[in-house]
This record gives sequence, structure tokens and C-alpha cells, in this order.
Amino acid sequence: MDDLKLLSNIKKPTDIKKLSDDQLNELADEIRQTLINTVSETGGHLASNLGVVELTIALHKVFNSPHDKIVWDVGHQVYVHKLLTGRYDKFSTLRQYGGLSGFSSPDESNHDTFFSGHSSTSISAAYGIASANKLKGNKNSAIAVIGDGAFTGGMVYEALNNAGRERSRLIVILNDNDMSISKNVGSLATHLAVIKARPSYFRMKDRTERIINRIPLVGVKLSNSIFKLKTSVKRALYKSSTMFEDLGFRYMGPIDGHNIEILTDALEAAKGANYPILLHIKTTKGKGYNFAELEPSVFHGISKFDIDTGEFHATGTSFSNEFGKLMCHFAGNDKRVCAVTAAMSLGTGLHDFEHQFPDRFFDVGIAEEHAVTFCGGLAKGGMLPVFAVYSAFLQRSYDQLVHDAALQKLKMIIAIDRAGFVTGDGETHHGLLDVPFLNTIPGITVYSPTYYAEMNNAFVKALYHDPAVVAVRMFKGAEPEIPSDFTPSGNDYDVYGDNNADVAIVTYGRLFDAAAKAKGILAANNINIKVIKLNKIKPVNKQAVNNVLNCKTVVFYEEGELNGGVAQIFNMMLTDLSYKGRYLIKAVENEFVHHATDKILLKEYGFDEKSMAEFITEVTTNER
Amino acid sequence: MDDLKLLSNIKKPTDIKKLSDDQLNELADEIRQTLINTVSETGGHLASNLGVVELTIALHKVFNSPHDKIVWDVGHQVYVHKLLTGRYDKFSTLRQYGGLSGFSSPDESNHDTFFSGHSSTSISAAYGIASANKLKGNKNSAIAVIGDGAFTGGMVYEALNNAGRERSRLIVILNDNDMSISKNVGSLATHLAVIKARPSYFRMKDRTERIINRIPLVGVKLSNSIFKLKTSVKRALYKSSTMFEDLGFRYMGPIDGHNIEILTDALEAAKGANYPILLHIKTTKGKGYNFAELEPSVFHGISKFDIDTGEFHATGTSFSNEFGKLMCHFAGNDKRVCAVTAAMSLGTGLHDFEHQFPDRFFDVGIAEEHAVTFCGGLAKGGMLPVFAVYSAFLQRSYDQLVHDAALQKLKMIIAIDRAGFVTGDGETHHGLLDVPFLNTIPGITVYSPTYYAEMNNAFVKALYHDPAVVAVRMFKGAEPEIPSDFTPSGNDYDVYGDNNADVAIVTYGRLFDAAAKAKGILAANNINIKVIKLNKIKPVNKQAVNNVLNCKTVVFYEEGELNGGVAQIFNMMLTDLSYKGRYLIKAVENEFVHHATDKILLKEYGFDEKSMAEFITEVTTNER
Repeated sequence: MDDLKLLSNIKKPTDIKKLSDDQLNELADEIRQTLINTVSETGGHLASNLGVVELTIALHKVFNSPHDKIVWDVGHQVYVHKLLTGRYDKFSTLRQYGGLSGFSSPDESNHDTFFSGHSSTSISAAYGIASANKLKGNKNSAIAVIGDGAFTGGMVYEALNNAGRERSRLIVILNDNDMSISKNVGSLATHLAVIKARPSYFRMKDRTERIINRIPLVGVKLSNSIFKLKTSVKRALYKSSTMFEDLGFRYMGPIDGHNIEILTDALEAAKGANYPILLHIKTTKGKGYNFAELEPSVFHGISKFDIDTGEFHATGTSFSNEFGKLMCHFAGNDKRVCAVTAAMSLGTGLHDFEHQFPDRFFDVGIAEEHAVTFCGGLAKGGMLPVFAVYSAFLQRSYDQLVHDAALQKLKMIIAIDRAGFVTGDGETHHGLLDVPFLNTIPGITVYSPTYYAEMNNAFVKALYHDPAVVAVRMFKGAEPEIPSDFTPSGNDYDVYGDNNADVAIVTYGRLFDAAAKAKGILAANNINIKVIKLNKIKPVNKQAVNNVLNCKTVVFYEEGELNGGVAQIFNMMLTDLSYKGRYLIKAVENEFVHHATDKILLKEYGFDEKSMAEFITEVTTNER
Repeated sequence: MDDLKLLSNIKKPTDIKKLSDDQLNELADEIRQTLINTVSETGGHLASNLGVVELTIALHKVFNSPHDKIVWDVGHQVYVHKLLTGRYDKFSTLRQYGGLSGFSSPDESNHDTFFSGHSSTSISAAYGIASANKLKGNKNSAIAVIGDGAFTGGMVYEALNNAGRERSRLIVILNDNDMSISKNVGSLATHLAVIKARPSYFRMKDRTERIINRIPLVGVKLSNSIFKLKTSVKRALYKSSTMFEDLGFRYMGPIDGHNIEILTDALEAAKGANYPILLHIKTTKGKGYNFAELEPSVFHGISKFDIDTGEFHATGTSFSNEFGKLMCHFAGNDKRVCAVTAAMSLGTGLHDFEHQFPDRFFDVGIAEEHAVTFCGGLAKGGMLPVFAVYSAFLQRSYDQLVHDAALQKLKMIIAIDRAGFVTGDGETHHGLLDVPFLNTIPGITVYSPTYYAEMNNAFVKALYHDPAVVAVRMFKGAEPEIPSDFTPSGNDYDVYGDNNADVAIVTYGRLFDAAAKAKGILAANNINIKVIKLNKIKPVNKQAVNNVLNCKTVVFYEEGELNGGVAQIFNMMLTDLSYKGRYLIKAVENEFVHHATDKILLKEYGFDEKSMAEFITEVTTNER
């Protein structure tokens, strides 16, 4: 990166303001080069960042961060912003343990307004800042940058509706790249396409206004109606020409989002307004890197890749892919099986299903709330809906899981992907809360398999045996190897090891693998333990609790938040049965977890076999 | 009700189809009479039901429930539907213990499609049903009936966006009464007002089309531009004239929602379409009862009232009102204090604040997700936002509480109203989950006061002492009387009774009152107990746990869901300290709770003083 003479000298956003137009374009090239080089090494979000190079430069040229506050929706397009706000030197540490976060992070820089990672929140947050600015009487701007994908989330509409009537210095930049994470499928996409098919709105407005003003003055005998028509036309063009104007915003656009000069002009105009502006820009996701332009979905969130060939390192099987195969299998045999995704067809492994069963595949947009209630409707209509969703995003459906799923006692299946630690993405993407919040909901059944065969078994039970709502949790990546002396039973729980051991580990999901190996390490040191592997974690089978009643020491390992987790419920079940031994919990205790690889995190929380063996050795030799 | 000769003979919806137009209007009168008479005795939702009398009659005249499925949004307007679907005889039991539910309930009738109570879900559910119908190849309709207030919720937009592109037999009826629960404040209301200012859309379209077709043919020298203009006008009028059309729906309306004949025609037209329809009807909330028409907000959810005077029985003080006074006090002293509500200004006691501090009062619409993230923005901008919300509706903000509040470590206060059992409304309105789901969120502090003075104290701590996000829970109604021998300390917990007693009740919030009285009853029977009253319930002060370590028996009473509640966390803290006595929990165990008065429910779950005294007597005399 020796040649990046411009970028390497940008130490703070104000440095950008000194550059000439030519230099700004050169800077854009240097940024693209840096993005491609770094992400090919670290993995991360490439296509989205390549799309906002010019926008980010123009934003920092026009506004004064951090006085003017930029809120990046989701935050997966924030790399360019990081490069321009004093973090170029550290950029190679992106997403690495102890390095830069892959998302917006106020801990890293006061130029990062909010931690982010979940979609469609930026307008709400920016409107809050704009309202505070107004109350304080200053003229700082609050800017939300949000993609057309994120625009399918309901919070966007709630925020527009709320903000549209107030005169505040709020600027919403709709970064329209025709493509959210998966291809946009909703009507909004059509609406945007209609808008984009026209010449730039402001210019058209001027021309048509001239024409309209001419019409009734020459030759035509006028009725009252024609005056009404003129008003309708004006209203249609000015007031109602876009949905955004219906919601009270002044609309600007669409403009070329890769032209720094045009962007700068538009942003200057927006900056001068004291009312809410929606600036619609057209960009190309993956701009400047051929492979990413051609397949922006594939180059969204990615692992390391070869720059010259655009090829990724092979990754092998995964729970997501196996789930996808399973879904095709079930759908082939049962016409009631439907798949629902919130813009995550690729990530959740539903790509084949989408092509094989298009009628029964529903991509609802980034709309997890709607997804669950929609599944309720499908179920009421006699279908068997399966909603595939990342754990961290299912949080958004909590009320719908309570009100529109569990309360209705309707059969639907929630296929939870990315349950547990997730490599690289950090605080906003770990799946550590789904178990605690599902535990609070009456009547939901939850499975947490360790192996593909167990996942298969859980789905069969979920689809054809269990009542009402069932969740099946899958961690990211491949199944571990099954111990040679262990055969998964398919029952609610398994006992691995000597049934008479007086030390037990209880766990579920991915951690069984480490626990099984810890058993081996401990056996080599003459410590005899058994491992209770829970397969169904809600409700916990009472027999599993009975099984450890005579143990002196029980340690529950849980890859999730402590409060409300299975470990606490297991404790209560032990208490109810007057268990008198020692009971210890190892879980994530009331904190947000930073970014790192899952391996590092598992070790950090004592969830690897070595840590488990050490902990058990310690507590069993220092008996109180 | 002897004169209701038409209504009393409607045993099923098909009976309506036999009536003449005159008889249908007569039926409407009988229904109104029944609504007013019954609700004046039972309390409930009056204004919303008076507004949909004609709509409900027309729906059952045109459609065939339950084959065609009607989904009533929120469900507080479902009384007329109940009267017409075989429940007239039981109508006097409305909202009473064992009687009819005040909301839609499939347990009651197969004409009630979904349990409901939370807002903005109906289009998602109906679209699910419509999609299932399409997959099954039948021609049944799915109909969502939704008010303009509920239309401010983001799920509506998610559902419209998703449904607008599919050809399904989905009919959305927008019941526009200019007035949701509080007055609509968002831009959507303006948009609807603009639409309503025009003549009925279909008629206008015909007339203007004739005019447009005439223009370019006579007299004027035409440029190419005029052709473009004509296209724009057509598109503006046809395609983009309403936001709903931008989202892919065919728009019909606005029509008079109190004219059965017009309604019937419009519904017949909608029934014939195989694409999604949005039918916009204008109604008057409270129609036919003068007092309710004049003050529809006041006559929304109400207690018993005098029919002739429109006056309610006096209710005295309440946590909601005291909270409202407190907010005015804080805002008067501190310019940073803002109040945020999701269309519940009246219900949460913010009415005076709204008038005294209009600049710092934000009604965001029925948009709990946006509300929390908006508070995050206000806090980032230096304000002190307080979001006042019912417990049951805060569920919808779970992800935002995690992602946009707790993770940001921003100071905001959640004032939770209706925490615990709520009289009359049933499954969807009890506040039994807020403690379990807040417990799962790192870094949030939660207070659960019993008395007004404690609430005051909690807000002072929340605003000026505690870090980050703080929730303060308030139950519905007035504070109980403080025992003469008890003085609230204002600390994290209080001990009431003999510190050396070897039996302890641990509890918080409203249940302290019963526990204190149970202590008295038990003392009279020579059973000596102490009551640990937790004031701060997250995190639990370890000293409170230490205080009961030497007790033989500890019973935790929790007016909330067992899983994830404070009682389980308290158990874990006891386990960590090697407590060897008995620990018992009385809570709501993994179930949805039906409707009844809070008094009945408290007794049913063993939370009244008599039940507590009996339970303690039983467990202490039958020592194992």
C-alpha cells in the first residue's frame, strides 16, 4: 500500500476538504484498492463498501463530523468512513481480534455515532439527534445513510412518518443499488424503479411546471375542471410524486452516487435546508471490482478471497447448507411446507429451495416482525411455514413470537441460524439471546442439535410431532466429528460417559463437542465424568435432571446469556428436587461480546475442551 | 333488550343475508343500543365499536365467514362481529371472568381468526392466509380490517410491501376515523387527509381521464413534452396517487363507512378481484352516541359509565397520573427531559406534559420499535428521554432495547405502565413478560416500586444516578396503603418484619402489599416471617440474598412469567452462596393468562394475602 499517497495522509475528515476535484477522484481509487486488498485478507463486507466510496468522500467534504452526525444503517458500509476518519493505519486489523470492528463503533471513534449491525434503525436514531439539535438550537445536521434493502424494514416507515411533519435538519440518504443483501422483492423496489426511470426529479419538475403553466392560457376553452386538473397535476408532481413526499419529506433525486461533484452539490443543498430531506442516490454495489459488480450478493459478507480470480477458499459443509437440503427434501414430500426468509435466502441456505419451489418460497424483505405474523397466517391457512433467520435478527420478532405465534398455538417452525458466537461481526451479530428470550415464551419448543443428523431429527419432530411453535437452533459452520464411542439417540437428551460418575457436565449444541473431548482429557487424569447432552432445551426433560441428582458436582456450560438461559432453569429444577450437591454455571454473564473468531471466543469464555478440563479438575480437587 | 327483534334472531352470519336494506339499518340501530347498554355496565371499548357497525354488517352480508377470513387489527372493534356470529346471548358477560373476551379469540368462535390485542399485525396475518388460499387453489378472501392509528405501525408497511406484488385475494380495509387512540400526529394522517379532500377516487379518475384525453387534441400546439406530461399525469393519478398504490395495492375509496349499501357494493367489487385491494373507508369513531362522538379518545378503552350523562365512576389516583405529574416536575427543572409515547399519551398519564411541554413531547405513532431507537438519538444528542409504554407493548421493542439502547450505553428511561395483571383485557394485555425479557439484556437497571414515593425515588435515580438504560415498572391503579409499621427506605431492598425470622417471603412491586398483610395473618397464628421487598430488581442486591441465607424456608412471589424472572435469578444467587434451606417459587408458569379482574387473578395465582398465609402455613408446618 506504499503508493496511497493521498489516503495515507488523511488523518481526519477535514483533510479531505483541502483536496481538489481531481485529487478526490484519485482518493476514491486509492480507497477502492485498499478495500479490495484488505478484505481479500480479512474477509468482511466488500460490495457494499465499494458502492459508497464517492458518497462517503462527499459527505466528509460537505459536513463536519462529529458535530454533524452520520448514522450508517446496518454499518456494513462503514469501511470507507473508517479510512477517512483516522483509522487508515489500523485498517489491516479489520475484524481481527483486538482490531477494528467491521461495523460502526463509538468505542473506536467519535465519528462513529452508533454501534450498529441490525437493519433499518438509522432514520429513527438520526431523527432523535436532529430533534435534540433543534431543542438545543444549533444548526448541526443529522444524516442517515440507508440502502434500499434496509428500506423494506418497518422502522423506516415509522421513522419517516414521525419525522416528516417536523422541521428538523434531518437528511436521509437512500443509497439505492437495486439490490439489498438478496435481490429486493417487494413493491418498494418497483416504486424506486419507476422513480429512477424518470429524469432527475428536480429538473423534470421545472420543465413540466413551465408546460403546465402554458397549457390553459392558449387556445383551449377552459372549464373549471381544468383548473382542478392543474392543481392535481402540481400536487401529483410536487407533493405525491413519491411515497417519501407522501410521508412529509422533500425528495431530491435520483442522482448519480458515483459522481463526487454532483453528490457534493446535492449535499450542500440538503445541508442548507431546515426541513427533512430524502436524497435518493443511485449506486452500483461492488463498483470498481468486476467480480463484485457481477455478483454483489455473493460479495456481500465474505471470507478471504483471491483478488485475481474472485474465488473464495473452499469451506465445506455447513448447518446452513444442510438445512437447505433438508428443506428441499421436506418440501418435495409435503406440499404444505413453505420457506420464509427476511432477505437472507443465501445466508440461511435457502437458495436451492427458492429455485425448486418458487411458489412456496417467500422473501418478505428485511422484515422479521412481519415474517413471523405472516407465518401465522400461512399456518392458519393450512401450510407448514419454516422461517429461517439469524438468531440476532430473530430478536426483532419477539412480540410476534409471543402474540402471533405462541398465543395462537399455530404450527410454525423457526430455523435459527448463527446461534451462538459468530466469527468476526461482533456485538450485534452473536446469537446469545435467542435461548433466554424463547425461554420466556409459553408453549414454544426449542431444539439445539450438535450434529446434522440431530438437526434432521429435530425438524421431523417439529414438523410432524410437536405441537405449536418449534425452534431449531443451528450454529455457524460445520458439524463436529461424532465421538467414536457415542451414538446420538434422537431423544430429548443423551448421556455420554459413565452413568455413575459423580461429576457431570450438562450442555447443549456446539459445546457438546468440547465437553466430550474434556471427558477424554479428564479420564486420562483419572477424573471420571459424564456429559448430559440436552437435545431439546425447552422444555428440559425432567429425567435429564434426575440423572444428575446424585452427582456431587454439576457444571452447566451454556454458549449464551446467563440470565434466562437453560442453566438457570436447570438449577430451578434441581432445587425443586432438593439437589444437595454443587451446581456451577459457565455462561456469558450479562455483557455484550466483542468481535473475534468463534474459536478465540469459545476459549475466552472457557468453552473449549482444555478450559473445561482445567475447570473441572480445579473444582473437583478443591472440594469445599 | 326485549325490543331487539332483529339482533336477537341473528344466530349466525348467514342470517344477515336474508335481511332487507331497511332491516339492515334497523339492525345497526339495535346493535348500537346493545353496545352502549352493555359497555356502560362492563366497561370496554365503545367508540371503536360504534364506528364499525355498518362495516361489520356489510362484511358479513358479502363474505362467508369462516371460509372467508376476517382479521380484526388489535381486535378492540370486534364486539359487533361477536354480536353477529352467535354470541349475542352471552354478550352481557363481556370481559367478565369466564365470559366473552374483549378481543378476538379463536377459543370462543371459529369466526375469530386470530387472538389479537397488539396493533398493526392484521395485514401480515391476512396476507399469510391469502397466500395459503392461493397455494391451495381456492377463491376464499382474506380480509384485514385496520384503523388509521394502527396504520402508523411499521408492520403495516412491511406487509404492504411484501403483499403488493403478489396476485392474491387479500383485501385491506383501512378504517379511517381521523383518530387513533390518541390523535394521529404523523405524516400519514396528512396524506390521508389529502386523499379525503378529493372526491371519491374512482369517480375522479374517470372524469379527469376524460379531460386529459381532450386537452392535447384542441387548439394547443403540441410539443413532445406534452405527451410526456400526459403520461406523468396518468401515472400520477393512477399509479402514484396514493402511497398504497406505490406499494402495489389497488386503491378504492374513500367511501362512506356508515352507508351499508355503498359498503356492500365496494366489498362485492373487492371480493371479485384476484389482486390485493386497499379499501379506504371514512367512519366516525363513537358514531351514534353523542358523548363518544365528541370525545372518542376518552371513550376508547373505558370503565363503567352513566349512559345519560356520559360520566365515568370516579377512580382516584393512579400510578399513571402520578407518573404524569412527576414528569412535569422533572421537565420543569431540567430542560433535557423529554417524554416519548407510542400513541398512548392519555393512557400513560402524559396528557398534562403534552400541553405544558409541547416541544419536548413526542407522540411517535403506534411505533414502539422506532420509539426506543428515537430515544437513543435524543440521548446521543444530549437529552434525557423517557419512553412511557405499556408492558405488553414494550415487547415489540426488544431488539431495539438490546441494539439501540443497552449496547449504546445511552441514558434513557423506560417508564413501564400496566406491569403485572391488567383487568379485563386478557392474554394480550397482561404485563408478565417485561421482567423476564429485560433480565436477558446486559446493562439495563430495573426498578419495581410499590408506592408512589418509591416510584419518585426510582426516577430520580434513573435520571441522575444510574448509568445507561433504566426501566421503572408501574402496575395499573393506585398505590396500596403503606403499613403503619413500615417506612420505605429508598434503598435497593427493604426488610419488613423480624430480621431473625427463619421464614422469608421475597417479592417486589404490587405483591409486597399482600405479603405484608400475610405477615400479619401469620403472626396472629404464631408464625414469624420477614418480607424482603426488592425495589431494584435488576441487578438484585447481593445483600438481599445474604439476608435470607440463614432462613429455613424462602418463598419468592413473582407477578410475572417464571422463566427468566427474578425468582430464578435469586435462586441462582442462593445456589452460588450454598444456601441449604428450602426455596420455593410462586409465579406464572409458562402460560398465557385469561381475562378477569386483577383481584380475581391475584387470588387465582395465590398472590393475595390469604393464599400467601395459607401457603406459608402449609409449607412450614409440613416440614419435610
